[in-house]
Amino acid sequence: MSSIFGNIFKVSTWGESHGAGVGVVVDGCPAGLGLCEEDIQRMLDRRKPGSSAFTTQRSEADKIEILSGVFGGLTTGTPISLLVRNKDHHSSDYQNLAEQYRPGHADYCFDRKYGFRDWRGGGRSSGRETIGRVASGAIAEKLLSLFGICFLTYVDRIGDIEISADAFDEAEINRNPLCMPDRVAADAASDYLKRLMQEGDSSGSRVVCRVSGLPAGLGEPVFGKLDALLGQAVFSIGAVKGLEIGDGFAVSSMRGSDNNDGFFMENGEVKKLTNHSGGVLGGISDGSELILRAAFKPTPSIFREQKTVDRDGNNVTMNIAGRHDPVIGPRAAVVVESMTALVLADLLLENAVCRVSNLQKIYD
Amino acid sequence: MSSIFGNIFKVSTWGESHGAGVGVVVDGCPAGLGLCEEDIQRMLDRRKPGSSAFTTQRSEADKIEILSGVFGGLTTGTPISLLVRNKDHHSSDYQNLAEQYRPGHADYCFDRKYGFRDWRGGGRSSGRETIGRVASGAIAEKLLSLFGICFLTYVDRIGDIEISADAFDEAEINRNPLCMPDRVAADAASDYLKRLMQEGDSSGSRVVCRVSGLPAGLGEPVFGKLDALLGQAVFSIGAVKGLEIGDGFAVSSMRGSDNNDGFFMENGEVKKLTNHSGGVLGGISDGSELILRAAFKPTPSIFREQKTVDRDGNNVTMNIAGRHDPVIGPRAAVVVESMTALVLADLLLENAVCRVSNLQKIYD
Amino acid sequence: MSSIFGNIFKVSTWGESHGAGVGVVVDGCPAGLGLCEEDIQRMLDRRKPGSSAFTTQRSEADKIEILSGVFGGLTTGTPISLLVRNKDHHSSDYQNLAEQYRPGHADYCFDRKYGFRDWRGGGRSSGRETIGRVASGAIAEKLLSLFGICFLTYVDRIGDIEISADAFDEAEINRNPLCMPDRVAADAASDYLKRLMQEGDSSGSRVVCRVSGLPAGLGEPVFGKLDALLGQAVFSIGAVKGLEIGDGFAVSSMRGSDNNDGFFMENGEVKKLTNHSGGVLGGISDGSELILRAAFKPTPSIFREQKTVDRDGNNVTMNIAGRHDPVIGPRAAVVVESMTALVLADLLLENAVCRVSNLQKIYD
Amino acid sequence: MSSIFGNIFKVSTWGESHGAGVGVVVDGCPAGLGLCEEDIQRMLDRRKPGSSAFTTQRSEADKIEILSGVFGGLTTGTPISLLVRNKDHHSSDYQNLAEQYRPGHADYCFDRKYGFRDWRGGGRSSGRETIGRVASGAIAEKLLSLFGICFLTYVDRIGDIEISADAFDEAEINRNPLCMPDRVAADAASDYLKRLMQEGDSSGSRVVCRVSGLPAGLGEPVFGKLDALLGQAVFSIGAVKGLEIGDGFAVSSMRGSDNNDGFFMENGEVKKLTNHSGGVLGGISDGSELILRAAFKPTPSIFREQKTVDRDGNNVTMNIAGRHDPVIGPRAAVVVESMTALVLADLLLENAVCRVSNLQKIYD
Repeated sequence: MSSIFGNIFKVSTWGESHGAGVGVVVDGCPAGLGLCEEDIQRMLDRRKPGSSAFTTQRSEADKIEILSGVFGGLTTGTPISLLVRNKDHHSSDYQNLAEQYRPGHADYCFDRKYGFRDWRGGGRSSGRETIGRVASGAIAEKLLSLFGICFLTYVDRIGDIEISADAFDEAEINRNPLCMPDRVAADAASDYLKRLMQEGDSSGSRVVCRVSGLPAGLGEPVFGKLDALLGQAVFSIGAVKGLEIGDGFAVSSMRGSDNNDGFFMENGEVKKLTNHSGGVLGGISDGSELILRAAFKPTPSIFREQKTVDRDGNNVTMNIAGRHDPVIGPRAAVVVESMTALVLADLLLENAVCRVSNLQKIYD
Repeated sequence: MSSIFGNIFKVSTWGESHGAGVGVVVDGCPAGLGLCEEDIQRMLDRRKPGSSAFTTQRSEADKIEILSGVFGGLTTGTPISLLVRNKDHHSSDYQNLAEQYRPGHADYCFDRKYGFRDWRGGGRSSGRETIGRVASGAIAEKLLSLFGICFLTYVDRIGDIEISADAFDEAEINRNPLCMPDRVAADAASDYLKRLMQEGDSSGSRVVCRVSGLPAGLGEPVFGKLDALLGQAVFSIGAVKGLEIGDGFAVSSMRGSDNNDGFFMENGEVKKLTNHSGGVLGGISDGSELILRAAFKPTPSIFREQKTVDRDGNNVTMNIAGRHDPVIGPRAAVVVESMTALVLADLLLENAVCRVSNLQKIYD
Repeated sequence: MSSIFGNIFKVSTWGESHGAGVGVVVDGCPAGLGLCEEDIQRMLDRRKPGSSAFTTQRSEADKIEILSGVFGGLTTGTPISLLVRNKDHHSSDYQNLAEQYRPGHADYCFDRKYGFRDWRGGGRSSGRETIGRVASGAIAEKLLSLFGICFLTYVDRIGDIEISADAFDEAEINRNPLCMPDRVAADAASDYLKRLMQEGDSSGSRVVCRVSGLPAGLGEPVFGKLDALLGQAVFSIGAVKGLEIGDGFAVSSMRGSDNNDGFFMENGEVKKLTNHSGGVLGGISDGSELILRAAFKPTPSIFREQKTVDRDGNNVTMNIAGRHDPVIGPRAAVVVESMTALVLADLLLENAVCRVSNLQKIYD
Repeated sequence: MSSIFGNIFKVSTWGESHGAGVGVVVDGCPAGLGLCEEDIQRMLDRRKPGSSAFTTQRSEADKIEILSGVFGGLTTGTPISLLVRNKDHHSSDYQNLAEQYRPGHADYCFDRKYGFRDWRGGGRSSGRETIGRVASGAIAEKLLSLFGICFLTYVDRIGDIEISADAFDEAEINRNPLCMPDRVAADAASDYLKRLMQEGDSSGSRVVCRVSGLPAGLGEPVFGKLDALLGQAVFSIGAVKGLEIGDGFAVSSMRGSDNNDGFFMENGEVKKLTNHSGGVLGGISDGSELILRAAFKPTPSIFREQKTVDRDGNNVTMNIAGRHDPVIGPRAAVVVESMTALVLADLLLENAVCRVSNLQKIYD
């Protein structure tokens, strides 16, 4: 199950940082969805390296190729195989990784688990692993868009710099390389990151993903709840250490009378007076905006001397070379969005067959 | 997939609050594990209602029956079916639930999803649903204990009252009904809850689960990561709105040089200088203590007038009867622990077959 | 995965021959299906022991209890737990099974696999294990009946006695205890079995299951093909040694020009000139009758001295006591039908979400 | 689930006949298995087209590329992605397939299921789909070979020509293009096929797969039985209409006293006096040779005028062009073997964790 995700809309990702390439097979995408490489490339470009001062200078076009499952511009219902070739390897930058365990990375754990590891550029635990997620997430998002489901994803915190609710400007997200919907905050974060880079250090960050247009009813009690699958999806992304749905940790201090969202009727539709729940009640979408927030730890690859051990069990001092982002959130935002889209596409399909009356709409 | 969890150690839970009973089938538990009803009853008693002023006064013995899969005191490798009969129904207390949607509950979502619902006592979305989790979690915990894996679970916050690190007293957890490892905090929380109950209100809370004795290597990249499966497991519990592993949300303000845990050798073993990671690196256990923290929203059933709508689309004012806990964390602690145990048992099995050399130990 | 079957319509069976009971949890049955215990009891009664001279005289009412998932006479979309208590154990009849391996049974294999086994009455490998299959199959069949899908199942061979195509009489199936649709063949088989019983011997048999009313389109290429899932489903039944779809083994001698089923139009619908395919082309139902045929080996429990070994590795001569059917097919027919129904219900749900246009029928 | 197979050793195949390529991702292969492209190529070459008068003259090198999951000649435990590019398309040969439904093919069913299809060369239902199975099967077989598990696969019947048990010559299998272990039968079958080709016709066939060296204990009751998974695996191969394990359909005429395999001790090991069971008892390998037999229908693409219908619902007469084998078995033999290997590798892993004592061998 390790690299396969989803119950009906299933993705199977593969690939290492410095291998021949990375990719994904999508099995279970319904037939008849319009799909071309540009649909996927657009999402991939949001995580592409080399696009700003704050991303690794590794130069990869990350050009996607659709190998199967699409005919005449439409998905056929058969598996869609997507491939991105790796180009710009600098494995020699990582030579000492073969012997030493980088703090904050999975090196030690992979060795203990498997007995050895592909150490080149982090191997399977590299950020390049997320290409398969984003490529398949793009297909999920295309499917969801047919039903009016839209995503809004951004960075709301880098270090101690948070966006201001008052200054929120959606259009700004794509204008700054940090994906922050607040120009002032983005500028401050930019200055902060430059300082950290000079010190060879890195910063933590936080990503928000909001989804509108969701019908009520998505999510399968008990273990396939919408929030449960988001829990798996988001925590499966490297460097995530926390996840909140709706009011998140703030609820632990709240009273029921404050936290409950009352219902009311508006134009014949059920609405909520507030949205503390973040769009999920009892694990099922409640028709209001889905809101989740993920905490990313600082990039563990820092350019400072660190204490660690080597494979032979010696205490050593280590220096990391290579090309690394000083912050993870801005490039990871599209990964959070992709994982959310994969969950929602899967639940959209599962929910469609949860009632006899739905089957009757199809078979009668 | 909705009520089935796990890849090898699989559990399938069932049951409604006011139906004939609740239960679980455990499929994939290895043969040869000593198991009796008392092993399970002990865990169930930690979530049993009626045991203090802060839990619902519903009177259920919650007596477990093992129906299959155990012979001569040992698991046989075949499915273990566990049953708890429901006894003390007061469905009439819930009569208005048939028509009105309780704020903060799944009523509306169930109706939208399935067209109708078993409204008696919350049906499948009742807290009684967790009996199957705890009963199966007890088996998982028994299995893990053979390998020196131990759990420590407690409530560290209720409303604004947090435990103090200095006053931490493990023995206190079982002495107070709020499961807080700090007598002073427990007393303060007790007073706070009594005040809320008088006001017909409820409080949020936070649960910590720590696991020691874990070998390094548990967790399957990339979607079966230890933290990813914990994400699904913990968010699948009703009322959870946030989850942190290790330093959690604090990492978003940290620098890499502070957050990275350096390694060092001690008595021939690899140790970490700190444990910001909470025991997970790259989704794999790193051999240090696993630490997770879950935020529970306040009990949504409050005894105050609330604005809501009915099934026919009318705005109404609703009053909730029935018997409800004023806080969720203390009884949910054992549920968090059980879900964590289920994840770990499954990963212990999966990890066992991830290397050819392990297979050789078994088949040669 | 051992005791769980299905992708969306999932069943999880449990129980041993001489344990507390046997049962099944059905997870994924759509909400809104009318269901009562009588729907299930009717199917169970078709496999009930003690009903004729040719079935074990074990006296079990096999009375089904629905423990969850049904409210107001309708399925709710949550797991349906079904329980049958065991009553008439004669474990003492099986005492020597604890030590000796019955030829043709799973005793030796269970011991080698798990280190020991529940030997009472065959434990998990007893025919009573099929109660969970039939109980859940009854629900699947009820669901399928809403869409005009009907089953016709019978025994077409016992020993060398085969039914005659000319004498085929559907009504006869329920009139004779051997489920043969041909009175003359049933009488001959009855005589043959009586002779075998006097000799302490048993006979092989063959079961046919035909399904009409199937829409074209059920079956998921490549590994979820209709015939592939039937392959798993039918071979999972104890004692099955062969399975044919349509013309089965006869195709290996045929020419393409004989085996191909031509298409033609009739009243605006696509029909086939012949049905050599047995209703499946490329793993997908083709709209004609589904036809499968399963071979059952003779009951391995015979009342003759047999050569075998004991747990301590001694050559021994064994005599089997207990109560055993002299032929498996007549009682297994409903099990074949149930497994077929489980496959079809699952594929009906999967197929419903294989096209974007189907989703639009539901969500638009 | 359609194109994913296996519980732990999982494969995800993809690709169409005339698309960019075909391939497979293997997820769950243990780390530390020596693997190179030649290991896989050797198996692929056994199904390669163009190698004899009896296979399609499509000219494909079918050269395999390992894209991930192998480092330093060893599997790393991460997904292994395998790719074969398609080269020699003649889509124009198939132009009429866009409009007309070939008898005996999946064309009609795909259209009914998905609304349209990739008609070029059969699309996903082409025999080229099996490349992913064979490529992944080669890895499974490499793993199994470490434990002394060996395969012997051949064609035992083409039309009415059967091999003779007396003339059985294993070495002959690779010497004739029909994979028959009997020179005389192979020559007769060759003459028969040449005659059929002149008549534009094709023949059915039968494939036998035998596996030696299996430990007792493989197979997971009840739905993951060895024979049940073989049932799914073999029936998932296009054109298979029948499967027998051991004595197969012959058992329906047998008596228990003939069919039961007695046990005896030999050199301290449990052996069987006969092997009617074909190596499986109660769904678990019994330590004797595994024997299965699959019936393949005649190639449905024949060069004769056939009656059929077109997409618009007209009765038409159809002629098929393209390049097609006159018999399926000889090239499908390696596919049967590959699917068997996938089942066995998966069960080898599952069985390894079915006992607490096995876990203790690994974790203590």
